[in-house]
Order: sequence, then structure tokens, then C-alpha cells
Amino acid sequence: MPHALIEVRRRWSEDEEAAIIDAVHGALVEAFQIPAHDKHVRLVVHEPHRFACPPHLHEPEFATLVSIDCFTGRSLDAKRHLYAAIVDRLTELGIPGDHVSIVLRESPVENWGVRGGRAASDVDLGFDVTV
Amino acid sequence: MPHALIEVRRRWSEDEEAAIIDAVHGALVEAFQIPAHDKHVRLVVHEPHRFACPPHLHEPEFATLVSIDCFTGRSLDAKRHLYAAIVDRLTELGIPGDHVSIVLRESPVENWGVRGGRAASDVDLGFDVTV
Amino acid sequence: MPHALIEVRRRWSEDEEAAIIDAVHGALVEAFQIPAHDKHVRLVVHEPHRFACPPHLHEPEFATLVSIDCFTGRSLDAKRHLYAAIVDRLTELGIPGDHVSIVLRESPVENWGVRGGRAASDVDLGFDVTV
Repeated sequence: MPHALIEVRRRWSEDEEAAIIDAVHGALVEAFQIPAHDKHVRLVVHEPHRFACPPHLHEPEFATLVSIDCFTGRSLDAKRHLYAAIVDRLTELGIPGDHVSIVLRESPVENWGVRGGRAASDVDLGFDVTV
Repeated sequence: MPHALIEVRRRWSEDEEAAIIDAVHGALVEAFQIPAHDKHVRLVVHEPHRFACPPHLHEPEFATLVSIDCFTGRSLDAKRHLYAAIVDRLTELGIPGDHVSIVLRESPVENWGVRGGRAASDVDLGFDVTV
Repeated sequence: MPHALIEVRRRWSEDEEAAIIDAVHGALVEAFQIPAHDKHVRLVVHEPHRFACPPHLHEPEFATLVSIDCFTGRSLDAKRHLYAAIVDRLTELGIPGDHVSIVLRESPVENWGVRGGRAASDVDLGFDVTV
């Protein structure tokens, strides 16, 4: 159920953009054990002058922000796993690991509207949030 | 005071986009009882390849995410009402109900800066958050 | 570490856009005492019809939303300071103070992945969150 947003400054090819999306989604499947079909990932490509980043980055065009809305409840270990998995997978695509900043926004299950407008707390999600 | 963001993949006409915005805003007025003039709704139209959605959606071009920042405090019943109202109204515009995913991000009143840079906890909001 | 997003409706010049970004970043440095190099600010320029705002705004083209993801823990006084500093600085650029709406989304330190994919709760951040 997570909604992930990836923000980049660099122009990537369409194939590379798909790979970036799959990198973040794959990390969520691996670390948070969400179903593979539970895919809600958007990529926003900012004009560089509209995306200010730390001046000390040596390759500022690779600055990447990842924001993930998810259910409350994952363990610190699952979060550690997620951050490492995202960075590992993005590094393989040429993005320096220290150019990636990630934030998890946790909201309780009742704050999600799913399956035709029902509160997620009223349905059987089919997976475990307490990983 | 809520800030709502609607993200879509499909190209809609300008009139349809306005109707989508009004659908989500109308649901907030109805379910959260905010004043009608309290309207802060943005629509982002992603290129389809930059908005990955579940592969089992039968009309993926209609995938729609709704993210709403709001004050902490609404009841579960008000949230249920909101999800149903959003989906009901979007369904009338041709968006399948199970293609809509909604997240509410609650932040306490003191986390909002309003009316010329004052904390919302320091002003009389003129409406009730505990619906 | 905060991630700030500024959303506007008006077309500004590139220099003006940089000034808007610096206004919000400067307010964060001033009020939250983050290091000046800790800069993660994006500006999104919506088409006006995709950014619905309160009908009573007398200069609706100046409607501006500021959303800031940050660590949990700042005092109410630091937040008050931040709201006032953002509005003061944006007012200098011609944006009416009552056309600005700000939301702070606080997430605990462990919800941030930094420095090559480590949990921010596992590293020495080099600054104090409890301002």
C-alpha cells in the first residue's frame, strides 16, 4: 500500500526512469515485504534550478529524494533494511549513495482509503505491517 | 485547511480536471465539514511511464492517488465518510473506485502556518476539527 | 535534513524562483538552526487551473503552499518562528502573507535514510533537533 515518490534533477532515458522506479519498488518488496503487485511509485523530474540541493554534492545532478507514505508499524530493522536496499539498488544505476535522501511518512492504517473507498483498517490487507 | 494533492496518469480536459478537483474538495467539505472556501487542491498529471501502478488494474490509465495533509483529530467515522465520498464523486467522473488510493497525513494544529505566518494553534480557526 | 516543497501558481523568472527557494531555506536555517548546506528545497509551478485556492484571495496568482518534511521534536516557539520567517521573506518577494499556507510533517529520526542509506538515528547528525 505504500505510495512512493522519487524526485530527481537529472534527465534520464525512459528505460532508466523505469529502472529507478523498479529499484525503489523492489526495495519496498524486499524490506517491507509488501506484495510485488502493490506498486504505487511516481517519478518527478525537476528542472535543476527548481531543486536546490546541498552545495557539497560532487555530482549534484544525481541528487535524489525518496518520500514514502506507508502504514505505521514497521520495525527499525525493517526501516534500516529499506534504506540500505534503496541505496544499493540506486547505486547500481549510477546514483551515488550519499546523494540519496529518504523519508518515511507513517500514517495509521485507518488513514488509508482503499478498495473502492473503504478504510484500510476495515479490510483484510493480506499482508503483515509488523515486519 | 487541508491541502489535497491528486495525482493522475490520464490526460483529461481542463473541464474534467476542474471536476476532479471539485470532487475531492466537495468530499472534504461534506465529510470533514471544512468551510467551502477553504480550498487548497492541486492536480498533478504524470506521464504514464512515470507513475507505476498495480499491474492488475484493468484500466491503468485511471489510476489515481489522493494525498491529503490535514489537522490531527478527525474520527474514524469521518475518515470513512471521506474515503467513500471521494470515491463516489470520482466514480461519477468515470474513475473506477478500486483505482483510487487515498492517504491522510495528519499533523497537529501547531504544525500549520496560516493567516500571515501564525501557528494555527494560535488563531481561531472558525471550524471544528473533531468531527 | 528537512525536505521542503514550495508550490506556486504564478510564473516567476528563474532568478525569482531561486529567491523563493532561498527564502524558505533561509527561514529554516534561521528558525530551526539547520546547517546552511543542508538544503533540500524543490519548487513546483502548477498550471493555475490545476491549483485550486480559496476564492477570497485577492491575488490568487500568488497562492503559495509550503510543505516541509522534518524531524520530530522542534518546540512550538521554533515552529512559530519558522512560519513568521517564511512569510516575512516571501512578503519581501511580493507574495502577500495571507496567501501562504505552511504545513510541517514531522517524522521521527529513525524514519530518515541518509548518508548512503543509513537510518538517521544511527548517525551523528551534527546538529540539535530540539530547538
